[in-house]
Amino acid sequence: MSEKPLPLIVFIGIGLIGGSWALALKKQGMAGKIMAIDRSMASLHRACELGVIDEAANWRDLSQADVIVLSVPVGAMEEVCRHLADLPLKKNCVITDTGSTKKSVLAAVSAAFGDIPTFFVPGHPVAGRERSGVEAANSDLFAKHRVILTPLEHTDPYALGVISRLWLATGALITYLGAQEHDEILAATSHLPHVLAYLLVDMLALQSKHEAIFDYSAGGFRDFTRVASSNPEMWRDVCLENQDIIINLLINYKKHIDTFIEHLSAGQADEIEKIFTRAKAARDAHYQKEQYK
Amino acid sequence: MSEKPLPLIVFIGIGLIGGSWALALKKQGMAGKIMAIDRSMASLHRACELGVIDEAANWRDLSQADVIVLSVPVGAMEEVCRHLADLPLKKNCVITDTGSTKKSVLAAVSAAFGDIPTFFVPGHPVAGRERSGVEAANSDLFAKHRVILTPLEHTDPYALGVISRLWLATGALITYLGAQEHDEILAATSHLPHVLAYLLVDMLALQSKHEAIFDYSAGGFRDFTRVASSNPEMWRDVCLENQDIIINLLINYKKHIDTFIEHLSAGQADEIEKIFTRAKAARDAHYQKEQYK
Repeated sequence: MSEKPLPLIVFIGIGLIGGSWALALKKQGMAGKIMAIDRSMASLHRACELGVIDEAANWRDLSQADVIVLSVPVGAMEEVCRHLADLPLKKNCVITDTGSTKKSVLAAVSAAFGDIPTFFVPGHPVAGRERSGVEAANSDLFAKHRVILTPLEHTDPYALGVISRLWLATGALITYLGAQEHDEILAATSHLPHVLAYLLVDMLALQSKHEAIFDYSAGGFRDFTRVASSNPEMWRDVCLENQDIIINLLINYKKHIDTFIEHLSAGQADEIEKIFTRAKAARDAHYQKEQYK
Repeated sequence: MSEKPLPLIVFIGIGLIGGSWALALKKQGMAGKIMAIDRSMASLHRACELGVIDEAANWRDLSQADVIVLSVPVGAMEEVCRHLADLPLKKNCVITDTGSTKKSVLAAVSAAFGDIPTFFVPGHPVAGRERSGVEAANSDLFAKHRVILTPLEHTDPYALGVISRLWLATGALITYLGAQEHDEILAATSHLPHVLAYLLVDMLALQSKHEAIFDYSAGGFRDFTRVASSNPEMWRDVCLENQDIIINLLINYKKHIDTFIEHLSAGQADEIEKIFTRAKAARDAHYQKEQYK
């Protein structure tokens, strides 16, 4: 694979994720020029001011792109891909995305292109933050974090190599998974915690007789609910795009709550301690060997 | 109130909370001597080595104490109080506790003494940590954190003043609440998040087909589950001591999950976004004005 910078990378959508990747790529000299398209002119303007991109692009510029990064909400992927499918793209142009769900992105791409192009590399940097927007972009966002790529059997090896190289330049740890496996794992470790935190904060805010209830919360509550400060629109889309898996997990989780309520109602101290001890052991086992943030 | 140091403070139970308070009191010169009793000789020994206490105490020493701090698990309060009730205590000796639930502590004290002594000041420093044990003690643990005191109508003003002064010396922010109100608020902002985090980690560890599921988790999951690294025995006791309120909250929470599942099954994007937006607003409103850690 050539180590020369790619002449032109265009981001479609330049928020926290796209912006941070663009900054990292610039820092590592991976691109001759970085441009972006965004539905928000203010974001584009700010991205230029902050030096995240070199200049704003229009749809015609995409015909010159070596890499196109789709960093729009998952719900907007199909529409964007339909635009791309109508354009004359450069030979060897590689398209990738940064969406949080992969099966639904593949469905959107397939709907727009008729099938999944060999030059399309589905990707997901697992580095969400409760902050969003290009203002929050930073070139270290992905360092030592996982990026999951979910190539298909027919995905072009050159395309996969290009995208892998662009992620390696950010300091990310790359993993390859199947799209279904990705969606199941992310539903469990990311989507479900987000939903549970949103629901807890909402329940307390709605039901509390104590106006100042949050005033008495300690660090545990702050940590537990931090994800509830995430972007509501984005997480609404993630839930809708990964609907079935999330619903199954929520149903399972309710069963776990029921079992716990039974133990607690019956004063079964041993059963309660067993659950807590097992959970602590599972968590501690992971985070003691933690090698990434 | 005299600003002279109290001649003798004895801690019964010298773990993270008792140890940190002892260290802060020493630093501020609030006590002539600090002693402790603990079921673990190793902890007592370590507390001496670390300079957390001046020396180990025996039950006879309690007759000389000006202040006795009960910093044992809530489940052990009654037994400890029965020992105290049999001892000749110094005139004006003040007893306080650091338990996470207040109604059950009052019940334990009442069972042991026949009623709640006027010199007993129920207290709860809201500064839990996933770490525990005297090794983790530090004199700044309570600085800018809330300490909730739940005095009764007949609690002696001198006793309340003494304990308030000992907490102020740690840099804590003191709040007075009723015991029931305390237990409801803490169930919502502390006990419930702990239970939910333990249950999530346990569910994933038990059910996952993906051995490495936690390897793909990001910062959101780490934050959300941090409280699941807390001491299982302690949290088992907290749950048992605050059983009814926690069960009611869990039942309510399940209803919120059900409503969410309905919205998600029906693809009601607006309803989902409404919940997430409301939750984010409630959380952000609080943590922007946050003045304590």
